[in-house]
Amino acid sequence: MPSNYRNFRISVPWLVLFLEAVFIILFYYFFSGESSQLSRTYPAFQDVNQMVIFGFGFFLAFLKRYGFSSTGFNLLIIVLGVQCSVLIDLVFGLPKTDVLDRIAKATVSVTAVVISAGAVLGKTNPLQLILMTVVEIIVFHMSRWINNTFLQVPDNISLMHAPLFGAYFGLAVSSWFSEPSPRSEKNASTPKSDLLSMLGTLFLWVFWPSFNSVLVVTDKERAIYNTYFALAVSAVTAFALSALTTKDGRFRMTHIRSAVLAGGIAVGYTAHSIKYPWIAMILGQLASVITILGSYCLQRCLNPAFKIHDTSGVHFTFGLPGVLGAFAHVVLFVV
Amino acid sequence: MPSNYRNFRISVPWLVLFLEAVFIILFYYFFSGESSQLSRTYPAFQDVNQMVIFGFGFFLAFLKRYGFSSTGFNLLIIVLGVQCSVLIDLVFGLPKTDVLDRIAKATVSVTAVVISAGAVLGKTNPLQLILMTVVEIIVFHMSRWINNTFLQVPDNISLMHAPLFGAYFGLAVSSWFSEPSPRSEKNASTPKSDLLSMLGTLFLWVFWPSFNSVLVVTDKERAIYNTYFALAVSAVTAFALSALTTKDGRFRMTHIRSAVLAGGIAVGYTAHSIKYPWIAMILGQLASVITILGSYCLQRCLNPAFKIHDTSGVHFTFGLPGVLGAFAHVVLFVV
Amino acid sequence: MPSNYRNFRISVPWLVLFLEAVFIILFYYFFSGESSQLSRTYPAFQDVNQMVIFGFGFFLAFLKRYGFSSTGFNLLIIVLGVQCSVLIDLVFGLPKTDVLDRIAKATVSVTAVVISAGAVLGKTNPLQLILMTVVEIIVFHMSRWINNTFLQVPDNISLMHAPLFGAYFGLAVSSWFSEPSPRSEKNASTPKSDLLSMLGTLFLWVFWPSFNSVLVVTDKERAIYNTYFALAVSAVTAFALSALTTKDGRFRMTHIRSAVLAGGIAVGYTAHSIKYPWIAMILGQLASVITILGSYCLQRCLNPAFKIHDTSGVHFTFGLPGVLGAFAHVVLFVV
Repeated sequence: MPSNYRNFRISVPWLVLFLEAVFIILFYYFFSGESSQLSRTYPAFQDVNQMVIFGFGFFLAFLKRYGFSSTGFNLLIIVLGVQCSVLIDLVFGLPKTDVLDRIAKATVSVTAVVISAGAVLGKTNPLQLILMTVVEIIVFHMSRWINNTFLQVPDNISLMHAPLFGAYFGLAVSSWFSEPSPRSEKNASTPKSDLLSMLGTLFLWVFWPSFNSVLVVTDKERAIYNTYFALAVSAVTAFALSALTTKDGRFRMTHIRSAVLAGGIAVGYTAHSIKYPWIAMILGQLASVITILGSYCLQRCLNPAFKIHDTSGVHFTFGLPGVLGAFAHVVLFVV
Repeated sequence: MPSNYRNFRISVPWLVLFLEAVFIILFYYFFSGESSQLSRTYPAFQDVNQMVIFGFGFFLAFLKRYGFSSTGFNLLIIVLGVQCSVLIDLVFGLPKTDVLDRIAKATVSVTAVVISAGAVLGKTNPLQLILMTVVEIIVFHMSRWINNTFLQVPDNISLMHAPLFGAYFGLAVSSWFSEPSPRSEKNASTPKSDLLSMLGTLFLWVFWPSFNSVLVVTDKERAIYNTYFALAVSAVTAFALSALTTKDGRFRMTHIRSAVLAGGIAVGYTAHSIKYPWIAMILGQLASVITILGSYCLQRCLNPAFKIHDTSGVHFTFGLPGVLGAFAHVVLFVV
Repeated sequence: MPSNYRNFRISVPWLVLFLEAVFIILFYYFFSGESSQLSRTYPAFQDVNQMVIFGFGFFLAFLKRYGFSSTGFNLLIIVLGVQCSVLIDLVFGLPKTDVLDRIAKATVSVTAVVISAGAVLGKTNPLQLILMTVVEIIVFHMSRWINNTFLQVPDNISLMHAPLFGAYFGLAVSSWFSEPSPRSEKNASTPKSDLLSMLGTLFLWVFWPSFNSVLVVTDKERAIYNTYFALAVSAVTAFALSALTTKDGRFRMTHIRSAVLAGGIAVGYTAHSIKYPWIAMILGQLASVITILGSYCLQRCLNPAFKIHDTSGVHFTFGLPGVLGAFAHVVLFVV
């Protein structure tokens, strides 16, 4: 096993360099069309970039031993995933669109990978994470292609499946790996790592309106404010429910970290089409309730039954609100 | 007392949920007008949002025991305050303006609450803070209405009273509470918490030009650069005075944390109307001097006399520069 | 020596106040022209501002004893440098350009000073750093003037010399000072300070596309995406080479901190003129390789020979990729 592990270690840099060489060669062949005018999406793209790099980097830093590992590895996964996603878009997508737009779409796609990485954190080695990145990006693009072609889902909506897709892909991968021993210190968190994780959550919270609106063409403003209100109501509900469900009435950081974002995820598909903010607010409240109830039910009942070990709780943080959002999308579409 | 405290604890989540239900119902009745074009204020709004969430969240994290408490609670206060402020604006304000503009104004208003929270940090329980948030937002809107109607102060100037209003409202609330015992470890800071606080200060420093210019319609650029220069001179003066007033000639973090922002607050009312940056620079220098002198006088003479305990020093950090700014506004208006 | 040091300490605030008085007087005489329309560079300027304040502030925080020192001092150096640079531009530069543009240029210039400060960190006292700031800004403007006048280098390209200039200026200054004893705890880093430094690196990484494009007038978008791809490839290469060059196959933080930025620096001169991203990607890969090889060679061979002590490794982090970039600029210009 140690020699096996050593072999893994040694092959990581070669795999990475090989991937990068393939990417450069493909860029050489396929990158030709470019638009010359300055895209107006740059500030929005920069917001999403910050959100992915800082937000997810620190969101996943809550395990004591993974401070550097998570922020550093997060960067590696993102840059590999973005290049891979831009290339798939170049090879199979529409030609001659804006390059920054392509990078923005790739950055949104890569959130799926980062969320999956949260589910398997501490159980995989770097080699497995890198392979997962490439495979997941390809599968995500295939799922989007199916959505666009057969279900007639518009492109910007199918991209918003990223958190939902990432959560369940991560859970599926996680079920392949053996659960680490529960008393292992690898799963311990410290006050300092909790604070870093809170910093990451705040980054995600602040930039989620940009994330939900970056690909919206019409009604961008509506997407922004509906997301903002949904996030605000989630945050309020998260604090209230966290105090209600703990015995001493204190706020528990893990609840708040999961549930403040629920609203943003739940309105991901519908933010630009919801006419009145109160609908977004009720969705945000429901999402927050589902997340906190889910964190109790899943951790106590479902996960042990299915032998799923979900390190960062991505199932209830990103999965359940995503399901609610997809359901709300269908309901609002019918109504 | 403990049973009393327990009752408080239990009522917090119900109060929060009740408030949120009221907010959603009011949104249902009053939110109708909306503009469809994308407001160009989004990047500026995002700056102010980042400033309030990160800046004040970490600025107040300097007490050892309040790391999570301050960043988490800060978020709860902000989202409650913003919803409350948007609603007051919807019910009593002008109809049919831009929604993002409303949220931006509400975010500026809520800085008053966050600053007040800094004055009472460590002395209030969550219930009192939440009540203070709602009451302060209502009183602040009333004060703005009086300013607009009777004193003919334009809307964007009356909003800039937020730091000044917040500081003195916080001091007034603070004087109602008993002072914690000075040797209590609740008031201790550690190097780590000091560094977090410095991070918060840097966020405030970087985004203060956006804060001062977000509501300015004409001469936005002038508001930005005057604020930048005023902040720059404050920072320089803060370092110099900090080294002068300590015995060993070292920089003291508390001085710098307070005084680097003084210039931005002092030019809040006048940033868009000051013609030459040297005026803003002199204002920034004066504000920084007043803040550091104030921190000596107030903490030694005034506060013990009036039995005011000002945990974060909001009186000299936000109050005194705000008074200077109001005075400068009158002087420049007359000249 | 201690009394000498005490005298130094005492003179720092007076020097700073004297400089600030001179700045205000010069602003009074020279600041007149201003444009009234809102520059569209504000979000880009804000990005560069964040990058300089947070990025370099925390990038240099990796020494255990310099947490506050580096973030605080970084702010002082930046505000002094920006004012000094704006003034030189006002006195000798073209009249009547946009003020925010001037501040953005000054912020780019001041990165040279911050990088130099990284080379002498822990060896200079505050007085020496402040003098270095003023002298370096003046020398940098002289070098730009020579570039513009005699070598016909456009203004925005000569500004991009800032990282290269800063690295070698810092090394030159560093060679004047005696090397601190190697076992001194001043050079030790802790996991916590390493994490702060990683945070700083991520800020630099995220905002480097804004840095490279802020002064570009035409082909801004191309400058952004070429820089993004160069940075992405550098990051990938940095991880791979770091694992290859360490015995146990682990990633080493110092390598990654230095090499992830190499691509951004290397395409600084050419980002707007490179037609295909694969060229930028190969440049990014080369820059990353040179940085990691350089960090081995320089620290073992060259630095002891020339008695250069380079605290933050600015030679291989900013110097070598800058040289590669200048070389690539010439090659691409000829081709």
